[in-house]
Amino acid sequence: MEIERKFLVDISGIDLEKYPCINLEQGYLCVHPVVRVRRSNDDYYLTYKGQGMMAREEYNLPLTKEAYDSLLKKCDGVIIKKRRHLIPFNDHTIELDVFLEPLSPLIMAEVEFESIEDAMAFKGPEWFLKEVTEDKRYHNSNMALSGVV
Amino acid sequence: MEIERKFLVDISGIDLEKYPCINLEQGYLCVHPVVRVRRSNDDYYLTYKGQGMMAREEYNLPLTKEAYDSLLKKCDGVIIKKRRHLIPFNDHTIELDVFLEPLSPLIMAEVEFESIEDAMAFKGPEWFLKEVTEDKRYHNSNMALSGVV
Repeated sequence: MEIERKFLVDISGIDLEKYPCINLEQGYLCVHPVVRVRRSNDDYYLTYKGQGMMAREEYNLPLTKEAYDSLLKKCDGVIIKKRRHLIPFNDHTIELDVFLEPLSPLIMAEVEFESIEDAMAFKGPEWFLKEVTEDKRYHNSNMALSGVV
Repeated sequence: MEIERKFLVDISGIDLEKYPCINLEQGYLCVHPVVRVRRSNDDYYLTYKGQGMMAREEYNLPLTKEAYDSLLKKCDGVIIKKRRHLIPFNDHTIELDVFLEPLSPLIMAEVEFESIEDAMAFKGPEWFLKEVTEDKRYHNSNMALSGVV
C-alpha cells in the first residue's frame, strides 16, 4: 500500500545541490488503473497502482533495460522526465521532483507515509505552499496523457 | 510463486462436455519478463511473471474492461484464444487448453502445484503423451510472438 501526500512548493531558499538526486523517466501504458514503466537511474520497473487518492495498492516489478525500452514505446502521451531530490525532514523524506521538458518548470514534493495516521499528522516545512494530493491534474499519469499541468 | 508442468495430450477418449470451461483471451506486452493481459470470461487481469521454467514469481492484478481493451491493442504478435476445461485428477486440477485460431489444433494440459516436491511427485493420467514444461516453444508468450507452435 502506497500512502503519500503531494505539495506545490517554493524552492527559492533550498540548495538542491546538498541532497542526493535520482534521475527518473517514466511513461504510462494505462491510467485507470495505473500501469507505468519507470527508469530510476539504471534500474527499470513496471508499476501497477490500484484505485485511490492518498492511499493505494502498489506493485513495483523489475524489468530489464530491453523490456523497459520496448514498453516505453507503447506508452500513451508524453514521457515524463524529472530529477528527484531526497530531502530529510524530521522523520520523513521529502521527494522533491523537478520536472524536465515538457512539464518544466513544474516542481512538486511528495512525502510517503507508513500509515494513514502518520500521513494525517504530517506538517510540512514552510516552503510547502499548497497541497495537491486530491487534485487529479497533478497525477503524473494525467500529466503524461495531456503533456501539460 | 507459480509452479506448473505442461503436457501434450491425446483427448480422443475424453468427454470435454462434462467439465467446467473458461474462455480465455490473452496477449503479451512483453515476453522477458512476461507482461500479459488476459480476459478470463468476464474478468480482466494484468499478469507479470518473473524468470524461470517450472517455478516462477507471478502477480495477477485486476484491470477494467476498458483498460484491457486498450492494452490488448499494444500487444505483440497474435492474440491467443483458448477454451480451458477444468478436469479433476486425484488431488489436482488439470487445466486442459483447447486453442482456437491461429494456434488451433493445439491442445495442451497444465497442472499447477503447491510445491516443487508436489510437482516432482506428480504422475499424470495415461492420456498425457509428452511433457513440454522445459520446451520454450510451448510457452504461450512465444506462441503469441510467432503465431505458430
